[in-house]
Amino acid sequence: MKNVPLKGVISYPITPFDEAEKVDIPLFKKLTERLISSGSHAIAPLGSTGVLPYLTDEEKEAITEATIQQVNGRIPTLVGVSNLTTEKTVYHAKFAEKAGATAVMIIPMSYWKLTDDEIIKHYDTVASQISIPIMAYNNPATGGVDMSPSLLKKLLQIPNVTMIKESTGDIQRMHYLKKELGEDVAFYNGSNPLALAAFSAGATGWCTAAPNLIPELNIALYDAVQSNDLEKAQKIFYKQFELLKYIVEKGLPRAVKAGLNILGENGGKLRSPLQPLTEKEISDLELILSKVKSSTLSA
Amino acid sequence: MKNVPLKGVISYPITPFDEAEKVDIPLFKKLTERLISSGSHAIAPLGSTGVLPYLTDEEKEAITEATIQQVNGRIPTLVGVSNLTTEKTVYHAKFAEKAGATAVMIIPMSYWKLTDDEIIKHYDTVASQISIPIMAYNNPATGGVDMSPSLLKKLLQIPNVTMIKESTGDIQRMHYLKKELGEDVAFYNGSNPLALAAFSAGATGWCTAAPNLIPELNIALYDAVQSNDLEKAQKIFYKQFELLKYIVEKGLPRAVKAGLNILGENGGKLRSPLQPLTEKEISDLELILSKVKSSTLSA
Amino acid sequence: MKNVPLKGVISYPITPFDEAEKVDIPLFKKLTERLISSGSHAIAPLGSTGVLPYLTDEEKEAITEATIQQVNGRIPTLVGVSNLTTEKTVYHAKFAEKAGATAVMIIPMSYWKLTDDEIIKHYDTVASQISIPIMAYNNPATGGVDMSPSLLKKLLQIPNVTMIKESTGDIQRMHYLKKELGEDVAFYNGSNPLALAAFSAGATGWCTAAPNLIPELNIALYDAVQSNDLEKAQKIFYKQFELLKYIVEKGLPRAVKAGLNILGENGGKLRSPLQPLTEKEISDLELILSKVKSSTLSA
Amino acid sequence: MKNVPLKGVISYPITPFDEAEKVDIPLFKKLTERLISSGSHAIAPLGSTGVLPYLTDEEKEAITEATIQQVNGRIPTLVGVSNLTTEKTVYHAKFAEKAGATAVMIIPMSYWKLTDDEIIKHYDTVASQISIPIMAYNNPATGGVDMSPSLLKKLLQIPNVTMIKESTGDIQRMHYLKKELGEDVAFYNGSNPLALAAFSAGATGWCTAAPNLIPELNIALYDAVQSNDLEKAQKIFYKQFELLKYIVEKGLPRAVKAGLNILGENGGKLRSPLQPLTEKEISDLELILSKVKSSTLSA
Repeated sequence: MKNVPLKGVISYPITPFDEAEKVDIPLFKKLTERLISSGSHAIAPLGSTGVLPYLTDEEKEAITEATIQQVNGRIPTLVGVSNLTTEKTVYHAKFAEKAGATAVMIIPMSYWKLTDDEIIKHYDTVASQISIPIMAYNNPATGGVDMSPSLLKKLLQIPNVTMIKESTGDIQRMHYLKKELGEDVAFYNGSNPLALAAFSAGATGWCTAAPNLIPELNIALYDAVQSNDLEKAQKIFYKQFELLKYIVEKGLPRAVKAGLNILGENGGKLRSPLQPLTEKEISDLELILSKVKSSTLSA
Repeated sequence: MKNVPLKGVISYPITPFDEAEKVDIPLFKKLTERLISSGSHAIAPLGSTGVLPYLTDEEKEAITEATIQQVNGRIPTLVGVSNLTTEKTVYHAKFAEKAGATAVMIIPMSYWKLTDDEIIKHYDTVASQISIPIMAYNNPATGGVDMSPSLLKKLLQIPNVTMIKESTGDIQRMHYLKKELGEDVAFYNGSNPLALAAFSAGATGWCTAAPNLIPELNIALYDAVQSNDLEKAQKIFYKQFELLKYIVEKGLPRAVKAGLNILGENGGKLRSPLQPLTEKEISDLELILSKVKSSTLSA
Repeated sequence: MKNVPLKGVISYPITPFDEAEKVDIPLFKKLTERLISSGSHAIAPLGSTGVLPYLTDEEKEAITEATIQQVNGRIPTLVGVSNLTTEKTVYHAKFAEKAGATAVMIIPMSYWKLTDDEIIKHYDTVASQISIPIMAYNNPATGGVDMSPSLLKKLLQIPNVTMIKESTGDIQRMHYLKKELGEDVAFYNGSNPLALAAFSAGATGWCTAAPNLIPELNIALYDAVQSNDLEKAQKIFYKQFELLKYIVEKGLPRAVKAGLNILGENGGKLRSPLQPLTEKEISDLELILSKVKSSTLSA
Repeated sequence: MKNVPLKGVISYPITPFDEAEKVDIPLFKKLTERLISSGSHAIAPLGSTGVLPYLTDEEKEAITEATIQQVNGRIPTLVGVSNLTTEKTVYHAKFAEKAGATAVMIIPMSYWKLTDDEIIKHYDTVASQISIPIMAYNNPATGGVDMSPSLLKKLLQIPNVTMIKESTGDIQRMHYLKKELGEDVAFYNGSNPLALAAFSAGATGWCTAAPNLIPELNIALYDAVQSNDLEKAQKIFYKQFELLKYIVEKGLPRAVKAGLNILGENGGKLRSPLQPLTEKEISDLELILSKVKSSTLSA
């Protein structure tokens, strides 16, 4: 049986910056604690939400250590270690393992489109140097390469590649993975507006930044699916659908930071060129959040 | 309350041809009877599956009358009346109503891309000349125009446009329709591999040619969703997923005809330029159908 | 040597309708005469501009005969005979030949996506029943199928398929055709804003509706290329670029009809669902046409 | 008048690596000298071809200095300084200016899609800190963001943004830029197979890695256009078209390195995850190069 240490709602913290656009570690820890205490089933720092590619090596290491320290074994951790070069990916994967991460997530970032052989060699090289499980992550919109289901199938033959995260937003990919790879494979949904469809299709977990803003609804959706109550799941999903769609459209780091501010939390600053949402966007988000809140109360 | 006379599994018969590539009405009636007797909740002739655009006016009229006659009031009928020109669409819609159709389906066929205003005027003109409900059908892959959710919303303001069929294969369109248009709207899924996701999202019905080949599984999926049993629905869906995907990939008229032959039924001939599946494709389909059969028995 | 009877500026007349949306043959003849007398190198009725798919069989025949009659041998004619079914395509191709057409144009119209084998058989069947040359026409935007360069290469092995018209708007397709098919092939550009690039790439002719509005500039571009004067060709091209882009964006039948009205000519009515340009669009077109006129004078 | 110091064939060197995948500066200088001595009109290190995003800050600085040193004022230099963060882009732009670069090239790299406002602020911040001209570079395929013509127009209002490089492969973008921005704007083609079309459209220069392999043909194309000889330009273009297409398809760093080896030059190693072309791809490239050579001789 494969080593699959993650399930349920896997929460992605943002990486907050201070006034000088330096990483704010104390604030990061505080935001991470919010995710843990609101019931997340796992914590995943240094994802797209955590603006991984915009950070220096030292900053990535500091975030990794801060996460492990803050989580302190209460729930599993999934650390993003993706890098354009294989050498740097190995470096950060080894760092995460040594720091105590439960698993690492790797997206094959590509400036030059990688061939299937290049991608397999990339994962193989990293996998051979660590012992913890790897989640292979497919997201052409940010990573620039689209791994076909058949390539993902090949990656799963590498012993510690045990999990797949799909963010193409195409539910048929998940159907194919489930059908083709059988009961043994664990696939995760990384496309927020697809949460209901993905769980209906049999996804093991949901990788999401939404618990920074609406953790109760995210977890309630998972619980409804677990108790085989489709009607309830559908009802809970439609309460959060508009928000899920909006934060994806506006970009997760910018939207989550704005949402935290609306909720009265300090979301920190962004690192340029990323800029805050506009006034208009913020007021749209306020409206959406207030509708979510009133619908939750009325349920 | 809107007049929504259709739900569940809405079955699309093919239009069979004889050796001279003329429409074979007796065979059409026989194939339609198979769909009725296997439990379909409605019959929809002259859809894409029924190769509507390849038929003459007289052939369309003959198919319409043959359907109403054969169904004989046992279940509702949904007749396709789409045409490139508004005048012809009105003509066929009036013919269908007079012949006794329960409702008509209209896709805004477009050689020249239509503007939103042109589409609204097209539906409005047709709607004003008939009294039965209209299903507005969105399928950019065959019709050549993609109606945005906001355009669909406008179409629903025309009194007898009461149903929407979505075939883009994008589940988020359905989420948007459901969220935006509220409980009052009935939307239907026209993308076979999306059947589970669409029902999970709250679709009222499934417009499908699959009951020509695997009616029990199609209806069992709907029943599982109706009884709020997600686990069962998922299990039943994965039994048919590969077939649903295959018949869509190969084109429904060609694939359904080949499947009927494999099942020992006469599927008739196709009209040129459409040609039968190749030997290789037929043997692939045989394998898929036999896997479906054995999985159904083992359940 | 292949039979290639067409070169230069091949002009596409619109099909005008009267108040009752019936085809107006006398007006069609008048508009065709304008194209001939302004120097067109050939006339091509029943193209996309001529709204071929919106016409009945009888209307197509009337347009064909009116064209041959009006042209009266002064320049070659290229008659569109495309149809969804093979049988009807054969019918219209034979009609055009008998009526005296120089060549016929065929786009593989597809509601159901056709396979390469289906397309080849379609052309082969038509070609075997006529003796005049065929122009194979690739335009995925209107026809719904994209013929790959390698498929086009196969079509050219059918003896009387001697010309290719490319309207994908991808100049690299033309480079590939020229390189791959050698000196022997004649390819034509059907994408108006690509006129300069296509002639630079070696196109034999330009299939265009623009001569309904600006024949002098269209022909001057061809002449500049013929005299190997790139600088002049570029200068002439930029004078008409904005207009070429605009009429394509708005749809050729609608835009040409509006342009004729602006020029003081009767463009007739459109057939529903096609509707006239809006007031705003008409005034944009007026501005563009007046800029073209003043730049032409100043040259 | 704007400061536009570049025109003609602007050559992009690869960044070669040694056996340990470290940057090989002596070999880089040697390859750069080849480009200069074969007649390039400018040298552009640290582009996509030079695998900019795969390098450390120190490596980028070493390449910048090596280029300036080797070129030694003989021709202009255009140094790539793009980075995900604004801070680092400013850093490298200042470094390049101080080192003596003629101009810098900046593509708005984006992991998270940038808004137009974010992109403008990004360029504005960098531009305000240097005095040399900036070439704004649009290449959605590698950079992940597609700058619209209207955004490019806005960027040109920043005083030292004086040049635009377009690599979308859409010739109509260039037509629009030329038409909209007038005689004052200098635009450059970055899509190799579009070289003839772009020069025909009025491009000021061609940014290309091809001179690493076939400098004579690249420069001859420019010369033919300069002497207003379209026929000759077309003939020269078709001699190199197949090679231009191939090296783009396979990825420039991999293809150029393989081509250098075929020509008997040392192309160095690649940095993982990038891997050498396969045996089959190398032999395809050999064939293409030998065809180019024989056609050049026969001309």
